[in-house]
Amino acid sequence: MPKRVPVFPHEGIGKTFYNALLLLAALAGTVITSYRLTFGVRDFDALYWLITAVYLLDIACGFNQAVKKGLVVLADRKSIARHYLRGWFTVDLVAALPFGWLIALLFPQAAAASGGMGALLDLLMIGKALKMVKIGKVSAIFRDIRESLSVNPALMRLVTFGFWFVTALHLMACGWVLIGAGEQGRPAADQYLRALYWCLTTIATIGYGDYTPDKNSNLQIAYTLGVMVFGVGMYGYIIGNVATLIANLDVARAVYRTKMEEINDFLRRQRVPAGLQKRVRDYYAYLWETQRSVSAVPIAAELPHSLSQEILLFINRELIQKVALFRNADEIFIREIVQRLTPLSFLPDDYIIRQGEYGDCMYFLSGGDVEVLIGGSRVAVLGHGSPFGETALLEGEKRMASIRALTYCDVYRLSKEDFDQLRLRYPDFDAQVKEVVAVRRRGAPEKPPV
Amino acid sequence: MPKRVPVFPHEGIGKTFYNALLLLAALAGTVITSYRLTFGVRDFDALYWLITAVYLLDIACGFNQAVKKGLVVLADRKSIARHYLRGWFTVDLVAALPFGWLIALLFPQAAAASGGMGALLDLLMIGKALKMVKIGKVSAIFRDIRESLSVNPALMRLVTFGFWFVTALHLMACGWVLIGAGEQGRPAADQYLRALYWCLTTIATIGYGDYTPDKNSNLQIAYTLGVMVFGVGMYGYIIGNVATLIANLDVARAVYRTKMEEINDFLRRQRVPAGLQKRVRDYYAYLWETQRSVSAVPIAAELPHSLSQEILLFINRELIQKVALFRNADEIFIREIVQRLTPLSFLPDDYIIRQGEYGDCMYFLSGGDVEVLIGGSRVAVLGHGSPFGETALLEGEKRMASIRALTYCDVYRLSKEDFDQLRLRYPDFDAQVKEVVAVRRRGAPEKPPV
Amino acid sequence: MPKRVPVFPHEGIGKTFYNALLLLAALAGTVITSYRLTFGVRDFDALYWLITAVYLLDIACGFNQAVKKGLVVLADRKSIARHYLRGWFTVDLVAALPFGWLIALLFPQAAAASGGMGALLDLLMIGKALKMVKIGKVSAIFRDIRESLSVNPALMRLVTFGFWFVTALHLMACGWVLIGAGEQGRPAADQYLRALYWCLTTIATIGYGDYTPDKNSNLQIAYTLGVMVFGVGMYGYIIGNVATLIANLDVARAVYRTKMEEINDFLRRQRVPAGLQKRVRDYYAYLWETQRSVSAVPIAAELPHSLSQEILLFINRELIQKVALFRNADEIFIREIVQRLTPLSFLPDDYIIRQGEYGDCMYFLSGGDVEVLIGGSRVAVLGHGSPFGETALLEGEKRMASIRALTYCDVYRLSKEDFDQLRLRYPDFDAQVKEVVAVRRRGAPEKPPV
Amino acid sequence: MPKRVPVFPHEGIGKTFYNALLLLAALAGTVITSYRLTFGVRDFDALYWLITAVYLLDIACGFNQAVKKGLVVLADRKSIARHYLRGWFTVDLVAALPFGWLIALLFPQAAAASGGMGALLDLLMIGKALKMVKIGKVSAIFRDIRESLSVNPALMRLVTFGFWFVTALHLMACGWVLIGAGEQGRPAADQYLRALYWCLTTIATIGYGDYTPDKNSNLQIAYTLGVMVFGVGMYGYIIGNVATLIANLDVARAVYRTKMEEINDFLRRQRVPAGLQKRVRDYYAYLWETQRSVSAVPIAAELPHSLSQEILLFINRELIQKVALFRNADEIFIREIVQRLTPLSFLPDDYIIRQGEYGDCMYFLSGGDVEVLIGGSRVAVLGHGSPFGETALLEGEKRMASIRALTYCDVYRLSKEDFDQLRLRYPDFDAQVKEVVAVRRRGAPEKPPV
Repeated sequence: MPKRVPVFPHEGIGKTFYNALLLLAALAGTVITSYRLTFGVRDFDALYWLITAVYLLDIACGFNQAVKKGLVVLADRKSIARHYLRGWFTVDLVAALPFGWLIALLFPQAAAASGGMGALLDLLMIGKALKMVKIGKVSAIFRDIRESLSVNPALMRLVTFGFWFVTALHLMACGWVLIGAGEQGRPAADQYLRALYWCLTTIATIGYGDYTPDKNSNLQIAYTLGVMVFGVGMYGYIIGNVATLIANLDVARAVYRTKMEEINDFLRRQRVPAGLQKRVRDYYAYLWETQRSVSAVPIAAELPHSLSQEILLFINRELIQKVALFRNADEIFIREIVQRLTPLSFLPDDYIIRQGEYGDCMYFLSGGDVEVLIGGSRVAVLGHGSPFGETALLEGEKRMASIRALTYCDVYRLSKEDFDQLRLRYPDFDAQVKEVVAVRRRGAPEKPPV
Repeated sequence: MPKRVPVFPHEGIGKTFYNALLLLAALAGTVITSYRLTFGVRDFDALYWLITAVYLLDIACGFNQAVKKGLVVLADRKSIARHYLRGWFTVDLVAALPFGWLIALLFPQAAAASGGMGALLDLLMIGKALKMVKIGKVSAIFRDIRESLSVNPALMRLVTFGFWFVTALHLMACGWVLIGAGEQGRPAADQYLRALYWCLTTIATIGYGDYTPDKNSNLQIAYTLGVMVFGVGMYGYIIGNVATLIANLDVARAVYRTKMEEINDFLRRQRVPAGLQKRVRDYYAYLWETQRSVSAVPIAAELPHSLSQEILLFINRELIQKVALFRNADEIFIREIVQRLTPLSFLPDDYIIRQGEYGDCMYFLSGGDVEVLIGGSRVAVLGHGSPFGETALLEGEKRMASIRALTYCDVYRLSKEDFDQLRLRYPDFDAQVKEVVAVRRRGAPEKPPV
Repeated sequence: MPKRVPVFPHEGIGKTFYNALLLLAALAGTVITSYRLTFGVRDFDALYWLITAVYLLDIACGFNQAVKKGLVVLADRKSIARHYLRGWFTVDLVAALPFGWLIALLFPQAAAASGGMGALLDLLMIGKALKMVKIGKVSAIFRDIRESLSVNPALMRLVTFGFWFVTALHLMACGWVLIGAGEQGRPAADQYLRALYWCLTTIATIGYGDYTPDKNSNLQIAYTLGVMVFGVGMYGYIIGNVATLIANLDVARAVYRTKMEEINDFLRRQRVPAGLQKRVRDYYAYLWETQRSVSAVPIAAELPHSLSQEILLFINRELIQKVALFRNADEIFIREIVQRLTPLSFLPDDYIIRQGEYGDCMYFLSGGDVEVLIGGSRVAVLGHGSPFGETALLEGEKRMASIRALTYCDVYRLSKEDFDQLRLRYPDFDAQVKEVVAVRRRGAPEKPPV
Repeated sequence: MPKRVPVFPHEGIGKTFYNALLLLAALAGTVITSYRLTFGVRDFDALYWLITAVYLLDIACGFNQAVKKGLVVLADRKSIARHYLRGWFTVDLVAALPFGWLIALLFPQAAAASGGMGALLDLLMIGKALKMVKIGKVSAIFRDIRESLSVNPALMRLVTFGFWFVTALHLMACGWVLIGAGEQGRPAADQYLRALYWCLTTIATIGYGDYTPDKNSNLQIAYTLGVMVFGVGMYGYIIGNVATLIANLDVARAVYRTKMEEINDFLRRQRVPAGLQKRVRDYYAYLWETQRSVSAVPIAAELPHSLSQEILLFINRELIQKVALFRNADEIFIREIVQRLTPLSFLPDDYIIRQGEYGDCMYFLSGGDVEVLIGGSRVAVLGHGSPFGETALLEGEKRMASIRALTYCDVYRLSKEDFDQLRLRYPDFDAQVKEVVAVRRRGAPEKPPV
């Protein structure tokens, strides 16, 4: 019963490591094979067999690993095998089979020959070159990693660029040696270094002119034309993208900086006094330190109802645990209220509410301490989890006391409109609100009506 | 009665092939003519006559092909002829007439002379050069293709860039040979390859220095100055644009990626748990797989009423066929309702409706299956085409049951406001809605009130 | 009474030509002076005196030309003179006085000497170099042109870039000769051409290496360092900007193209049928052909009330002349209504109104013809200037007839809300509307109720 | 009691100067040390001791200077010391201690030796090289300056780029000499200049080819490869950023220009007459001259209530002092009203209000003069601080008079809705408004009802 043996999962940390291994093997297979082909190295050493082993392992995994096909996950061996045989199997097989070694085994004279015996030698080289088809799978592996892993996407793209840049540079350098333009007299490693050097002086458009194609070789000139068109384009594309990527490595911080520049520009233009400027800057710095963001959470708005509720529940989980009104509330009610709360932040000494003001909202204090001031003198201090400002909603329109932040404060604002609607729909909430007010009025002098 | 013979249409697949042929002929005419002029090739072979034939055919077509002039399509031969004679006719005629051949025929000594006889030779060359005026029409042809064909515009622009790049590179290389800077001793093809090579090392700003203008030739230095200013600018412009174009080849996918990066960044910043993160990512992946888009259809909003209705009818045609309420409805009613439906998607196990919630909308299930849960236990399964959630709109405010997605579901949301307005205006719809509810309540235990 | 002679205006076509002349003179003065200084040309020919004359004329104009200082226009000679003496007067005077000629006159031996007499020669050269200070005024002149002239700003910036590029290139080339790096043996023009060539190969980063600084000259190496840092930066900046500018030369067309690409992408993604796709594209093409824009006129919205009214009056002047209801209306009424009309466009065969539909607006036909259909058969054709759709607003909610565009139609939409408010506030309008309806119902069979 | 001595503040002008000094010392320490190491200069002169002194001073400051750690400011010596010892102390100490001098003192033969004695010499060099670790602190200093100082952020970033560019260029040039690629025969300064020259020709991708790595030195070729990859990337990144930064040096002006281009484009497209075009342009020019902005103040909107109120109070402080209604008003009322006023600007001769128009707002004149026209003839002139337009709000809907701007006018608009709400909530305001109207009607013929 082969179906009882569970297949490997299609994502997770194990798959990511496996993918990283595959990437390494594909890169090594391509670079080493092309290097050996270029310089006519014909031995089959440990490295060759290691790569072959990884490639063979990949075929085994291909038959035993769940795959995601569009939105569906194929998890039974039969569909996995069908999907694999129709897909990457051929490429994997061609790359895995040690054709080069087989040919060398069958025609030992080919491996031994240093020159002549053209056809056999060519066959051997083609056999070895087949190792390089694995490179074709790299894009798919990168996509797989990108989709399953929540790494920084800019970083991911940098790695992808680096991979392709190294591969392309290496292949162009090998080509340069192959067409006879390298310095033939030197050892292989030196030739390779000089080919890389020529390649980079060309594609970075430096063009010292110390290594140039032979004026009498049409082939070398044509090859250089190709490198110029393709390589220069690739290099310019990569440099341009890397610059953008570096600038955006931390998207959130980039947004923060742009915001701060706009703010500073605005403040300077309006000649706002230094003290007030500092307060505004401190406000954004606070938002940044606590939320890693300078804006509220509009991303949740475009998600479907059920997902956005879950995200808001998660983000506001601390408030819900702290506010007495919410702790025992119905789950449905909690889900509704979290979508109506607006997060706000206040700096020390900021007035959240001013006595005498018209009140059109209430607040829940989710972090920090505030003081209650009546006629300028402190009558109470409220800690986190306290609701305040509801008295004006319940009994009149003017604020009966001021509320001033003592520390950095995070509050949630609930508008009068939403408050009234919620009380209408949820009698439990209505009852609790009334109770809080009653308690406060009767025996709790430390929390006067606001 | 020549008017009875119908003219060729001004757009369509035939016209596109014709335009592609013209492009090829204009490119060939320009490249071949300039190459032959540069290297003093004087024979008139099959290629010359083939190009001439295509150019002559173009004149014939010019008189027999409908044209779009602004918004009006000219379709009768008289206006076509008038429009053509005032427009491209002169260019087409000059390019089509075999001046070079005529001169060679009239003054056989010019064609025979390898040197001397300057004036006649010049005349011959000018005659031949006239073939190149056709290149002036290329922009118009490209515009024509772009407007009539719904190909990817980025791809189209890449092709245009490629065309002009090849033409400019070729002409600059020919110019280099003409001013005597090529390696005169070599065969024509070799000279040409080296001229191309010089040209590309210059405009890609590589500048090896193996081919440079003669230090004693003011003409060559001045020519190089021109190539540096124009060529470098052109190359930089093309590289910059190609990079952008490649990045945007699939605009929709680029938008999707940017969206996913924003989402990932937001989720990571808020430290949302991995499971919830995966659900959010799956949601966007699902939108992408099914709609090739991560947003709803706001583009339709800015079209005039009649067009946006037709597009929405088309997009929602499946729903309309599936939902019983809509199948026999008045066409006017259908047109009104499709503009009020909001498409939403849900993942398996998402709650679309929660029992006890306040209900302010109803849904139409256009794809997938949902289960109806009362007090947590399944009482029914609904298939595509089912409306649900309307009971709360009709009879009370609280949801009487939960609805949970069993598979990926596409639903259309209709708000209470729109629902009430439609029922008021369209008595038929009102009646049908009531009937569905009645049926369900009476004898359909598998669909309880929601 | 010098005040009676009117001063020259501070803007207008005359001022623009004058500014163009100044630009030319400043460019010529700088280029020619530096060229002559570099190559030791010492004669004072017609060109020298011509430039001097223009510079002198500029001083005269400085005292007789109104200037705009911030928002105030100085128009009396006294304030003009005060403003000029404090501003550009010194620069203009230094540039205008023929110091070089004076020194040559006073110390004839300086002008005659080909070598030696260092101090005097230096004095002469400094005297001549003063002609170049005029270049400092160029930025101010360009700003003046940009502000007073309604030319394409992208084109203007291209010209500015071109000006500074030519000036900087020329000065860098002169510097190259001055430090002894030019090919000293050749004639001046040849040296200059080669200096330009070196300069351009360097700043365009080509660097052939055929002209390089002398390895033994620290001065030449340091000069090259300076040109590399400054010149390469400048060239890169200009190439980058020119590419952007070329892409945006016609801002409106660029917006149109981007729009079309979005639209095409959307249509293709949704697999909208070809016929419907064509209609959508035709719609945008029509908007573009008639309005040179793909959007309505939101720019007017942010202007102050009085200006936006005037612009809308201007834009809608044709409708106001055509629609009978508006022709004799109160000016105040016209001003109010134009801010409430929304322009819309329809293609031939588009339904503007469908019989049986709920009507919440009326239309004014400002261009094109429409047909009135009852039950599918045509009962009337309406020409431009006709109002329609008002019957549903007056008497009931359903449209009594369909209106279909026969040609491309421009209509203005007036919503029911605005219509009711206007009728309430303006009894004249109310009366006229009623009359039109009455007339139509009584004796005008060609215009049935819509 | 060491705590009684106050610590240095963590921000302010003194700190900024101190930071600038540190930057200079770090740059000097790095550049001079690496230069001396490269060319084997072994003496310890005044400059060496000066830099050492600044580094020692920095350690002293590290223990006596308040620091901002996240949002908290550490101000007592104990926490400062703990924070410093855990942070930069090690780096500062290593950089400050004169290791090089100590080694030279202990092993005088090392300092004297011109060759040989490798190990000791290496030790000496490493000792000296430790001076360069200070460069690691530069990023932190720049961040400190950026956060505490309200300089133009673009300018700040230019300075940062410049700093790193100079440092990197210098180090790359020193490396070139160190690997033996410089022209060994020349004096140190000449070698250094040529190394800089080679370095810049390479990273600016010019590549003349007059200085290239020795073809027989693998080390030099590999070093060049490194410089090509890193240096070209860095140079491209800096050039690209500098171009953007220069373009945005004055963000506000850039926004203004883009706005003006859009406006001009719109006006030209709509063929608006020249006079009206000029008025629109003048309007934006006026906004720009007075506000350094073309838009209202939406930035205040996203700040928390208390901060936005304070900013609006500051911006509108002039109006509040001028308008009689506001001068003695309650502070709470002032805070409410400033958030409801919309600033508007009018040009001379603009109608702010037209007689007969429907009035839905009132105005406060905060700058300029307006005239009151009834039936076209002037009946009064109002100066700054005057409210007008309230009569229509109080008594009827139509404007009884026109108000036309005589000069550039700044007014604040208060909508009827807000006006009614404020009168309801604030009886004092209501009373004052009534009084103004009464006074005007009774005995003030110079201000008729509007």
